[in-house]
Amino acid sequence: MEATTRDRIVRSAAKLFLTRSYNAVGIADLCAAADVRKGSFYHFFPSKQELTLAAVDAHWTEQRAAWAATLSAPRPALDRLRQLLIDTAASYRQARDRSGTLHGCVLANLALELSADDTLVRARLQEIFADQVALIGATLADAAAEDAIAPAIANPVTARAIVAQLEGMVMFAKIDNDPAPLDDLWAHTRLLLGLRPVLT
Amino acid sequence: MEATTRDRIVRSAAKLFLTRSYNAVGIADLCAAADVRKGSFYHFFPSKQELTLAAVDAHWTEQRAAWAATLSAPRPALDRLRQLLIDTAASYRQARDRSGTLHGCVLANLALELSADDTLVRARLQEIFADQVALIGATLADAAAEDAIAPAIANPVTARAIVAQLEGMVMFAKIDNDPAPLDDLWAHTRLLLGLRPVLT
Repeated sequence: MEATTRDRIVRSAAKLFLTRSYNAVGIADLCAAADVRKGSFYHFFPSKQELTLAAVDAHWTEQRAAWAATLSAPRPALDRLRQLLIDTAASYRQARDRSGTLHGCVLANLALELSADDTLVRARLQEIFADQVALIGATLADAAAEDAIAPAIANPVTARAIVAQLEGMVMFAKIDNDPAPLDDLWAHTRLLLGLRPVLT
Repeated sequence: MEATTRDRIVRSAAKLFLTRSYNAVGIADLCAAADVRKGSFYHFFPSKQELTLAAVDAHWTEQRAAWAATLSAPRPALDRLRQLLIDTAASYRQARDRSGTLHGCVLANLALELSADDTLVRARLQEIFADQVALIGATLADAAAEDAIAPAIANPVTARAIVAQLEGMVMFAKIDNDPAPLDDLWAHTRLLLGLRPVLT
């Protein structure tokens, strides 16, 4: 039972942080959304920061499993990367169609909203984005081994540029409340990999 | 005098939103930072939203002037674009060295923090980012006219990818509290423009 209550608090927190932002959400809101009393909340989480770490971890654990599955499929490396970007656009489109609003990426939202003083959560976000870069980087190494891209470009700096392009486009999609900018991700990723533009 | 008080409120608001985030800052904080009474505050700004619009406008007016100056210098178009990215990295580096903290871009921070329900501020941010894309886009058109890039790539979609790359790298710089990722902007922008990698 304890696991279920804790999990309910974590899940509703991640949702509230995404839809209303971190600082707009108080402990009372978090308790109401999870349908728990304050005592129960504090039993699991001594502070909002502890809860945020748990919410961030839960979000990335789930997202990471999806990334890892797509990026380890038995297909050429660049096809896997392309699929990841297509799936990303599709998932934002689906979320927008369901709720009417494109709220963006909770990890990037927290990264830009949280004060730099919140070193604990920032350190965790740093690890998560480093993990994203490492997952993309491993796929680039596979692509180089398959002679699909130049070995010199299959490095962490290029992998970071691909994640930066993704998060930057999510920002445009959020501002426009329209996932369309995310449909350009593969074309721009090809360019960042030194490949020829896709002819459309 | 009125102009000065109003201006002081706007400037200290932009600074507080940047260093502490939008929702963490209340009217009392804004009054204290600008050294004005609540009555005076409400005389100029009926709501926090009105103030936010003014702060966002003031920030972009200043930043836009710098962008326009750099992008209209009597130099080849790609040199102007490269200079803009170098200046951007330098300005984040300077701010970090001065305060010890890299707070990022107030426009992107607000874009990701503000709830999608705040349609007024979101619409203004949308206009500002469209303006950024247009400024970069005009420079790409110049570059194509100079035969420095392919005409087919000198379009708004590429210009948006350059701004997305920039904001994505500012996110990494903020998470790392280190401007180093911004030093890669020109190399990645060259790739997004279909040019060969810079040999270093």
